[in-house]
Amino acid sequence: MFEGSLLGDKTRMTELSRDMNAYIRPSPTRGTLGGVTRTTNEVILLCEGGGYDIVLVETVGVGQSEFAVADMVDMFVLLLPPAGGDELQGIKRGIVEMADLVAVTKADGDLVVPARRIQAEYISALKLLRKRSKVWSPKVMRISARTGEGISDMWDKMTEYRELMLASGELITKRQRQQKVWMWNVIQESMLDHFRSHFAVRDQIPLLEEKVVSGILSPGLAADLLLKAFKGRS
Amino acid sequence: MFEGSLLGDKTRMTELSRDMNAYIRPSPTRGTLGGVTRTTNEVILLCEGGGYDIVLVETVGVGQSEFAVADMVDMFVLLLPPAGGDELQGIKRGIVEMADLVAVTKADGDLVVPARRIQAEYISALKLLRKRSKVWSPKVMRISARTGEGISDMWDKMTEYRELMLASGELITKRQRQQKVWMWNVIQESMLDHFRSHFAVRDQIPLLEEKVVSGILSPGLAADLLLKAFKGRS
Repeated sequence: MFEGSLLGDKTRMTELSRDMNAYIRPSPTRGTLGGVTRTTNEVILLCEGGGYDIVLVETVGVGQSEFAVADMVDMFVLLLPPAGGDELQGIKRGIVEMADLVAVTKADGDLVVPARRIQAEYISALKLLRKRSKVWSPKVMRISARTGEGISDMWDKMTEYRELMLASGELITKRQRQQKVWMWNVIQESMLDHFRSHFAVRDQIPLLEEKVVSGILSPGLAADLLLKAFKGRS
Repeated sequence: MFEGSLLGDKTRMTELSRDMNAYIRPSPTRGTLGGVTRTTNEVILLCEGGGYDIVLVETVGVGQSEFAVADMVDMFVLLLPPAGGDELQGIKRGIVEMADLVAVTKADGDLVVPARRIQAEYISALKLLRKRSKVWSPKVMRISARTGEGISDMWDKMTEYRELMLASGELITKRQRQQKVWMWNVIQESMLDHFRSHFAVRDQIPLLEEKVVSGILSPGLAADLLLKAFKGRS
């Protein structure tokens, strides 16, 4: 399974949506983690249980959802359109660093030249990052959905990644870590919800936030007051 | 105030430690947030209250402390030694992206050439990141403590940053946001401690983590069981 801006719309996945072996399902966002809900993790499990051996998770490309999804998938793929330099800066910080593979899309016609430039830029940039795996360095490729160029190469790379990660034991370690991270994510989110909605706390939050922002109260002291209210009458 | 690997040791800050206008204090780490404790934030306030108009916060350069400190300071400075390509990869992911200024240190003698190369690499890499400020783009400079080259230029840039951020109102907005973030950091950490040490929860954590890691229980279900134990007998 992987992640990226795959244009996850049935109308735009005409071939895939006609394939009897494929199941496509858009998920509504529910406010938490920028669109990736706890259910995303469980839907992946469900698909695996249902016999699907390749599960693609697409995110909207903004907010926190990419970070949450990176903790659920085996391989994180970043799809980049060959836009100008200014638009590149719009990529959320930290996302490039999570990518196991970066694919520059629409690399056909007039866009071949900018796509090549962006590929070269990302190859340089990725060199500055710490290696996360002993067996894999992130790859940067060019693909075109129109001409089909690069697509099968990309799939080969993804298969190679899977084989290397499996053989080295890193995939198992990664999955085990992800499971634990996910358990604590759910706990943390639930504990904060529990806190925010607690009767002794909820009405005080706006007032104390206001005092903190205006410098009347230190953040630590405001936190203490809220925590005391929470613990005193839980 | 800023942050970076300033070699915060009195023995290595010989000139500064003789200056009657300077106060240097090492802080012990206490396990939370990779060495930056809640008290760091409050010590900064205390120094400001004591009349110190420049407060430098140094972190150890590993773990989560840089991220925590970035949410406390006006300007985040990353100091990089001019090491080879391999060592550069050791920089914790995400840290470069928080920097308002990157200084390549030890840029003297034989190291001038590698320092120049690293400067050029970081200038390219920083171009790929989204702009965080309307008035400031992160700068990359070379400095040498031995020859003193670049130090006063660096200070000029830091002063320029401060003036631009103040004039545009971004500094005030940043500080207000930081205060709120810090309040919630304290709450979150305290709530997780509260949870982990709760009598109905603490003994179950290792067992449930084990079940999650070995795939017997889904992370969401394990979280539910722990949360139920917490809420049922709090």
